[in-house]
Amino acid sequence: MRKISLLFILLISAACLVAQEVRPVKNVIVMIPDGTSVGVYSAARWYKFYNKMGDRLFIDPYFTGTVTTHSSNAPIGDSAPTSSTYATGILQKTGNVAIHPEADPGNDIYPVDASRTYQPAATVLEAAKMLKNKAVGLVFTCEFPHATPADFSAHHYNRGAYKFLAPQMAYQNMDVVFGGGNSILTDDIINHFKENGTRLIQNDRKALLDYDGEGKVWALFGDKALPYSMDRNPDQVPSIAEMTAKALELLSRKEEGFFLMVEGSQVDWAAHANDAVAMITEYLAFDEAVGEVMKFAEKDGNTAVVIMSDHGNSGLTIGSRSCPGYDKLSIEQLFGTVSNYKLSANGLEAILVNCKPDQIKAEFKKYTGIDITDEELQTLLSSKNYKESDYTKVGTSNNMAHNIVNIMNSRTCFGFTTGGHTGEETLLASYHPQGDILRGNVRNVEVNAYLQKLLGLDRPLQQLSDEIFARHTDVFTGEKIKVTVDKKDPDFPVLTVKKGKNRLEVKAFSSVAKLNGKPFDMGSVAVYIDKNDTFYLPKALAGKL
Amino acid sequence: MRKISLLFILLISAACLVAQEVRPVKNVIVMIPDGTSVGVYSAARWYKFYNKMGDRLFIDPYFTGTVTTHSSNAPIGDSAPTSSTYATGILQKTGNVAIHPEADPGNDIYPVDASRTYQPAATVLEAAKMLKNKAVGLVFTCEFPHATPADFSAHHYNRGAYKFLAPQMAYQNMDVVFGGGNSILTDDIINHFKENGTRLIQNDRKALLDYDGEGKVWALFGDKALPYSMDRNPDQVPSIAEMTAKALELLSRKEEGFFLMVEGSQVDWAAHANDAVAMITEYLAFDEAVGEVMKFAEKDGNTAVVIMSDHGNSGLTIGSRSCPGYDKLSIEQLFGTVSNYKLSANGLEAILVNCKPDQIKAEFKKYTGIDITDEELQTLLSSKNYKESDYTKVGTSNNMAHNIVNIMNSRTCFGFTTGGHTGEETLLASYHPQGDILRGNVRNVEVNAYLQKLLGLDRPLQQLSDEIFARHTDVFTGEKIKVTVDKKDPDFPVLTVKKGKNRLEVKAFSSVAKLNGKPFDMGSVAVYIDKNDTFYLPKALAGKL
Repeated sequence: MRKISLLFILLISAACLVAQEVRPVKNVIVMIPDGTSVGVYSAARWYKFYNKMGDRLFIDPYFTGTVTTHSSNAPIGDSAPTSSTYATGILQKTGNVAIHPEADPGNDIYPVDASRTYQPAATVLEAAKMLKNKAVGLVFTCEFPHATPADFSAHHYNRGAYKFLAPQMAYQNMDVVFGGGNSILTDDIINHFKENGTRLIQNDRKALLDYDGEGKVWALFGDKALPYSMDRNPDQVPSIAEMTAKALELLSRKEEGFFLMVEGSQVDWAAHANDAVAMITEYLAFDEAVGEVMKFAEKDGNTAVVIMSDHGNSGLTIGSRSCPGYDKLSIEQLFGTVSNYKLSANGLEAILVNCKPDQIKAEFKKYTGIDITDEELQTLLSSKNYKESDYTKVGTSNNMAHNIVNIMNSRTCFGFTTGGHTGEETLLASYHPQGDILRGNVRNVEVNAYLQKLLGLDRPLQQLSDEIFARHTDVFTGEKIKVTVDKKDPDFPVLTVKKGKNRLEVKAFSSVAKLNGKPFDMGSVAVYIDKNDTFYLPKALAGKL
Repeated sequence: MRKISLLFILLISAACLVAQEVRPVKNVIVMIPDGTSVGVYSAARWYKFYNKMGDRLFIDPYFTGTVTTHSSNAPIGDSAPTSSTYATGILQKTGNVAIHPEADPGNDIYPVDASRTYQPAATVLEAAKMLKNKAVGLVFTCEFPHATPADFSAHHYNRGAYKFLAPQMAYQNMDVVFGGGNSILTDDIINHFKENGTRLIQNDRKALLDYDGEGKVWALFGDKALPYSMDRNPDQVPSIAEMTAKALELLSRKEEGFFLMVEGSQVDWAAHANDAVAMITEYLAFDEAVGEVMKFAEKDGNTAVVIMSDHGNSGLTIGSRSCPGYDKLSIEQLFGTVSNYKLSANGLEAILVNCKPDQIKAEFKKYTGIDITDEELQTLLSSKNYKESDYTKVGTSNNMAHNIVNIMNSRTCFGFTTGGHTGEETLLASYHPQGDILRGNVRNVEVNAYLQKLLGLDRPLQQLSDEIFARHTDVFTGEKIKVTVDKKDPDFPVLTVKKGKNRLEVKAFSSVAKLNGKPFDMGSVAVYIDKNDTFYLPKALAGKL
C-alpha cells in the first residue's frame, strides 16, 4: 500500500508539473481586461473590501503567473498587436489586427518572416469554428471593430480601418456578439444578418436578457462604446456580467462546444485618463463577468479559462510621491474618498458641461463628495468643451473630464507614471478542469500555443492561415485563368477569376463569393490588402473553377 | 485500461486542485526580494534579454499568483511587519518585528487582539528549529538585524532597535547566517559565538566559500550592508547566489532537514532611490540565488520553495509620461542606455565625490556612457556631500547620488510614482516536490499558514508563542516566589526569580539563563518589552524552580 501511495504521489506530481500536456476541452474561454496593470487588481480588491463587498476578487483563486506581452518590434505593446498575438500566435506591430507584420530588422524582438508580411493570421476563434465546428462568440464594452474583438475575428494592418474590420466581423458568421457600436453597422452588414439569420438587437437590454432563440445573435448598445459601468443606466445598458452570462447560456447549447472571448474593454480607457475610480469599477464590472465564467466552468467540468491583460497602462500605484505620509494611511484614508466618487470623470463631465457656472460646485459635491475651491471652479469653467455661453471663457487646452480627473486625483493617493501603455508583464489566471493550467511567466505567443492545445487542433494555426489566407496570385494560376481586380469601389475591390465558362467573384472583406452569379459562403473572409494589391482567400477556391 | 486511466486522471486532477492538502517536506526555503514591484521583474527580464543573458528569469517557471501584503492597520506595508507576517502569521504595525501589535481600532484591517499586544510571535524559523529539530539559516545583503532577517529570528516593536535585535539573532543559535553587519557585533555576541561554537567569518569571501565545517557559521561582509551587487568587488564580497549555494551545501547535511530564508535586501533600497539599473541588477543577483535554490530543490525532491516580495516600492514602469513616444521605442532604445550604466548611483557617487571638478565629466561618461551637460555638472558639483574644497560650492539639498539618479533617469524611459513603498499585491512563486503549491491571490497570513503546513508542525505557531513567550508575571506565580527586575543596565534588565534555595536569572534578549549561577540554554530567547515592563520567556522555566 505504501509503495502504491508513493508511486501514486510521484505520478501525480509528474502530472502536475509536466504542464506541457494540455488535455483539450470542449469549451474555451479567453478573458482580457484591457490595459490592466497589477495595481488595478489591488486597488479594486481594497475598494471592494473597504466597501464591504467582500475581500476577494472573483479572479483571485485562479491567478497562476504572468504574461510577457509586447509587439513584434517594441517591448511596450499596443492593444491591437498584443491581443492579436494571443489570438494568432504571431507577434505584430502597433496597429496590426491578426496579420503578419512588416519586418523591422534591428528592432524586431524575435525574427519576423518578411515573406509573410500582410498575410492574415488565422485566429483561435476562426480555428474553433472552422476546424472544430464550435460555436464562437465575443463579449466586450467597446465598439465591435475596436482592437480586441477585431483581433479575434478580423484582419488588417490598420486597427483604425473600421470599414474593413466591421464587415469581416459580420461575415465571420459568429454565434454571439454582444457589445457596442451601432453606428458602425452598414446596410451591407444588416443585409448580411438577414441573409445568414442573425438576430440583431439594438439598444434593448430586455430583449437581450430575454433572448432565447437558437440562431446567431448580435446585441449592440450605444453608437460606439458602452458607457463606463459606473455611469451606465443599469435598466438600459447591460453589465458585462449580464452579457457574459447570456453568451454562456446561448453558446453552451452547441454540442461541439464553444470558443468565447470576453473583453473588459474600458479599464484601459480609464487608465489612459488616469481616472482611478473608473479603472477600479471597470475592473470590478469585468471581475463580475469572471465570476459568471468561473461559475459556469467549475460546474461544466469541460471548460478551460485563460484570463490576462494585453499590456499595462498608466502605472497605477496605491501611494504616490505627491501624497506625504501615504504609507501609513489607513484603508479609510486611502479608499474612503475614492469610494465617494459616484461617476467617472467622463460621466461627471457629461453633467457639468450642461450646468450653469453657479451650479457646478454643488453638482461636483453631489457626485464626488468634494468641495472644490474657487480656483478649481475657474479651471473647470475654462475647460475647452464647457459650453455655458454666459460665461467669459478664458479657455484651457484641456477638456473638462481632464480637469475633473486632476481634481479627483488631488484628493487621493494614487500614483500614475503616464497616461499611456507600459511594458510590465500582466497577471495571468488559468483554469482547466483537469488541472492542466498555464502557469509561471509565459510569453504572449505561448498563451496562443496553449489555446491551440485547449482546442485540440489537428493542425497548427499557421497551416490554417495558409489554407484560408492564400494570396490570390498563388491560388489562381495557369494559362487558362484570367484574373482581374475591379476597383470601382476602391475600398472594396472585387476579384474576378474566369476560367472557361466559370466566373468567380470575390468581394473584399466578405465571406460570400459568387460562382457564375450564384452566392456561396467561402467559410472564411477574403481579406484585401491595398499595400500589395493582394486578396488573401481560401486555397480551395481554385477547385471551384 | 481506459477506466483506470480515467480514474487516474480524476485522482490527479483532484490532487492538483485541492491545494489545501499540503504535504510536509524536509526542507523549506523562503525567498524575499524586498520591495520588488512587478515592473522590476519585467525590466530585469528585458535587460537580461537585451544583454543576451537569456530571455527567462530563474523565477519564471515558478510564478503561481500574487500576495496581498499589508500592515495590521494600513494597506501599504513596511518591511518589518510585512515579512514578520510571513514569518509569524500575525499582522503587525509599521516598525514591528515578529511581535503582536498594538490595536488601532477603526484602522485595523482585521481585528487585533489587544490582550496580546507586545507578545513576541514565534516564527517559522523558531518552529523549524524547536519543534522539528531542523537546521536554520538566513542569507541577506543588508546588515543582519535589518527588518527582514530580524523578522524571522528576533522580536521587538521597534525595527530600529538593533541593540535588542542583534543579540536575539545571535542567541537563536542559528546554523548559517550570511550577510552584512560586522559593525553591529558586540563583545557579548562574539563571546556567545565562542560559547556555542559558532565560527565567525568576517570580510573573507574565500573563507566562506572554502568553509566545510560541521558547526554553526556566521559570515559577515562590510560594516553594515553589502554593496549593491553591481558595485561590489566580486573577489572580496560574495554574491547572494554564492552565499545561498554555500548555505544550501551546509544546511542540507542535517538529517532532519532545514529552514532557510534568503532576502534580496536591496532591491528595495534601489527602488527608494529610483535607481533603475540598481533595481534591475539587484533583482538579477537575487534571481541567480533563485537559480541556485531551484536547482537544489528540483534535484533534492524533498524541498519546497516560496518566493514573494514583502511590498511594492517606487511604482517602476517601463514607459513614462516624461518620455514622449515611448510606447513605440525599440528594445535598444528602452534598454540600451541603462545597460551602459556600470555602477549604481551610490557606486558612482563614491567615485565622484573624490574627483576634482574637471574630472567629473569624464568619470561620469566612463561609468554611464552619458555626456553630462554643463548645467548637470554644476548640479553635481553643488551636491551637499561633494567635498572638493577648491570649488566654490553653491550647495543643493541633495546628495550627489540623488543628482546622479536624476541624470541617469533623464536618459531613460522608466516611470516612478514615488520613492516609497506602494500597496500593490506582489508576485508569488511557489515550488513543491509533489505539486502542492501555493497559488492564486493569497493574503500574507495565508503565506504563513502554508509555511506551517510545509513544516508539518504538530501545533499552531500561536501555541508555540504561548509556550516560549509567556509573560513572566504569568509564569512565576505563587506566594513562595519572589521576582525582581534589575535595571542596572536599563537596556538589558535581568529578571531574578527566587524560590526557596533556587535562584533563576534571565537576561533580556538572551537565550542563556542561569540557575543558581549555572548557565543553561532556555531553547529560545527571552524578550524584554519596556512598554509593559515584561519579560516574555518559556513557560517551562517555572519547572526549574
